[in-house]
Amino acid sequence: MLEAGFAARLGSLLPSDRFFTDPVDCYAYAYDNTRKIFPPDAVVFPVTALEVQAVVRLCIEYGTPLTPRGRGTGTSGGSLPEQGGVVLSLERMLRIVTVDPTNRVIVAEPGVINQSVQDAAKSHGFFWPPDPSSAGYSSIGGNLATSAGGPHAVKYGTTRDHVLGLKAVTGGGEIIRTGCYTTKGVVGYDLTRLLIGSEGTLAVITEATLKLTPLPQARGGITAHYRDLASCAAAIVQVMALPQTPSALEFLDSGSLDLIRSRYPDMLPAGARAMLMIEVDGAESYVPEACAAVIFACANEGLIQAEETADAAALWRARKTLSPLLRDIAPKKINEDVVVPVSALPEFLDGLARLSSKYEVANVNFGHAGNGNIHVNLLVDPALPDEMSRAATCLNEIFDLVINLNGTLSGEHGVGSEKRAYIGKEIDAATLTLMKQIKRVFDPNNILNPGKLFP
Amino acid sequence: MLEAGFAARLGSLLPSDRFFTDPVDCYAYAYDNTRKIFPPDAVVFPVTALEVQAVVRLCIEYGTPLTPRGRGTGTSGGSLPEQGGVVLSLERMLRIVTVDPTNRVIVAEPGVINQSVQDAAKSHGFFWPPDPSSAGYSSIGGNLATSAGGPHAVKYGTTRDHVLGLKAVTGGGEIIRTGCYTTKGVVGYDLTRLLIGSEGTLAVITEATLKLTPLPQARGGITAHYRDLASCAAAIVQVMALPQTPSALEFLDSGSLDLIRSRYPDMLPAGARAMLMIEVDGAESYVPEACAAVIFACANEGLIQAEETADAAALWRARKTLSPLLRDIAPKKINEDVVVPVSALPEFLDGLARLSSKYEVANVNFGHAGNGNIHVNLLVDPALPDEMSRAATCLNEIFDLVINLNGTLSGEHGVGSEKRAYIGKEIDAATLTLMKQIKRVFDPNNILNPGKLFP
Repeated sequence: MLEAGFAARLGSLLPSDRFFTDPVDCYAYAYDNTRKIFPPDAVVFPVTALEVQAVVRLCIEYGTPLTPRGRGTGTSGGSLPEQGGVVLSLERMLRIVTVDPTNRVIVAEPGVINQSVQDAAKSHGFFWPPDPSSAGYSSIGGNLATSAGGPHAVKYGTTRDHVLGLKAVTGGGEIIRTGCYTTKGVVGYDLTRLLIGSEGTLAVITEATLKLTPLPQARGGITAHYRDLASCAAAIVQVMALPQTPSALEFLDSGSLDLIRSRYPDMLPAGARAMLMIEVDGAESYVPEACAAVIFACANEGLIQAEETADAAALWRARKTLSPLLRDIAPKKINEDVVVPVSALPEFLDGLARLSSKYEVANVNFGHAGNGNIHVNLLVDPALPDEMSRAATCLNEIFDLVINLNGTLSGEHGVGSEKRAYIGKEIDAATLTLMKQIKRVFDPNNILNPGKLFP
Repeated sequence: MLEAGFAARLGSLLPSDRFFTDPVDCYAYAYDNTRKIFPPDAVVFPVTALEVQAVVRLCIEYGTPLTPRGRGTGTSGGSLPEQGGVVLSLERMLRIVTVDPTNRVIVAEPGVINQSVQDAAKSHGFFWPPDPSSAGYSSIGGNLATSAGGPHAVKYGTTRDHVLGLKAVTGGGEIIRTGCYTTKGVVGYDLTRLLIGSEGTLAVITEATLKLTPLPQARGGITAHYRDLASCAAAIVQVMALPQTPSALEFLDSGSLDLIRSRYPDMLPAGARAMLMIEVDGAESYVPEACAAVIFACANEGLIQAEETADAAALWRARKTLSPLLRDIAPKKINEDVVVPVSALPEFLDGLARLSSKYEVANVNFGHAGNGNIHVNLLVDPALPDEMSRAATCLNEIFDLVINLNGTLSGEHGVGSEKRAYIGKEIDAATLTLMKQIKRVFDPNNILNPGKLFP
């Protein structure tokens, strides 16, 4: 419960339709894709940086936790108000401030949906490369908070590669501007990328200058089906050795293929136990030769067939259904997004099979193999404590395997609360201490998304 | 002069051939491309992170300024030991630790010359995109310190876009590791990019994991000559509106062309008062169509001729001579590397001409126009105090013009000591305060390159 004096003053900062305290209203702001529930005591909807600043400053005065939130599509708990207090929803900061095709820039507020940015860019022949699966409903503020990526990151990189500058309100209540409006700039420290991926723990981003990329003229799709996992893993390495970097290189294991078969019975060849979905893009003249090179690189003893896809859109729709379909076959999935070097994928995928067998925990694995970014899903039933315990041990060993293979614990979902306990596996004590000190510089009163990231 | 006790202990950390105190030996470490001279009291040449750490810790104990240095090719004073003390030369940390083409990675120590990285990458079909003019003799440590770029940044970005992780010793004497070995990773704050471009004020980078890019199959070059500046500036905007992003788009003004004519009398058409040098790269099949698109976009009323270049290498050699040639026509050049949005280039170049005339200070301008990054050179004689004073006022107005056009004061050279006094024009007080606090977190005793960046 909020202190009465605080609630009254908070209410005075914003019109009543942008200030919720009724638990019923607040409940929609209690959860994200982790399915954990932390109801906030209030939700505010500022629409300007000055309003954000006023809310932050009031929270400093009262020591009230303040959790910034985009559209709540995250999977790591980054937007959950774990310690109660106020949720600061950016969803009404919806202005696309500038569309400037000459300079290849869009300036947008954080509540703008990723797809809206794409729509605004497309009419001028551009796109904004970050493409999380949630692009249709996640906001660029959330994309910035997690440095979101997606299938096209293998060629285009992630959010941090496509932002020129930010406006933000720090946890200390100061309005700052980072970066610049131009594609080059080295004046002062790079606070832009420090804020990107900081999951709302340092500052509330109120405006972003997004760098646009020309739309490719053409795209081509290839599917390759394999009799066994090892052959498929080897083919990933072969494809990534090509000078023709694919614009997407998605891997699906046998569990994933079975899920797709359950929904689309005739889509996949019998006998396929692993699959690659590959996209290339570029000039009209380039795409056919790149497709041919990819198909050639896919060939090995375990290949059933590699071919250009007649209906790439149908395949991508099938790929996108995987995450929701997992909910059909198990009460709960423990969904990770670990990354290993591409060369280590064969060993890693083999290790996953071994650990699944050792701990008797079913897993389904797919993901952005061109980056070595695999979504590992452990399928469990929370009603079975023994299974849950085995899954926890299994997960811990998966993380150790990732680190031993010189990988990272998260490629795109972030740490939030879900991976907080494991961050010490990846980041040494001295570096972690430095990060915590940076947190204190930006947020000296620890009001901004307190408790996240660090154990 | 160093305190005797300090000098003795410093000497005990390293063999005698890696520890200079003789002023004659130290003198080569007193200057960079600013032509300012600050002789250090000692120069050390550590070859491991532990040795760097030991030096840093000793400097903390004695409060001795420590200035990291690559190859001293910088133009902003970033590597000058302004406050005396010790220069920490990284030039003997020369190991390429890992060449890993499968994962598109090279791990290298900071003393490795940029060209050596290119050579190691090339045999595997890759390159490392940062391409400062100094690539043949500048080190990757220096490239990292300034987030160096060059002509190809218009397509490929700058140093910060091509680094996966770092190992470094902070000003506090801690060894840290940032980033990861994979192309995706969002665990913890992005300290990698915070260190890149921080000009040795936060930490000494001792190892970098560099992300490689496949070499393009083919390249094409175009030159376009214009009767007047305004037509040329308009053409830059037209070319950058193409979906075919050039891999280089260099602008040369009439002063630059006259310099080239003085050395290569027959290279340029008579009547040309401005020129573009454009490069495209990509697949064999793509390059001719991209060249055609660029030539079409170059056309306007002021165009004399746009054509594919028979001998692109000769042209690039001519372009690279510009900076040294400027030394022939004036005792001193004040060399800037400001950036404005591409759409503002016509107004900016016009403004430069106006200010040159107003203050009677000759200027020669060329640079990476595709990024809006113009090297403005004010040609002056230090023996003429009145001219120097007019130049200082002119420069100040140029910077104001850049900021008013939504540009930045440095695209690739950095702030160092040269632009320190102007940083407040671009970065507001709250953001500057935050940067200074970050400096204190990394370097609580202010021993690392003290006095740089901030006024």
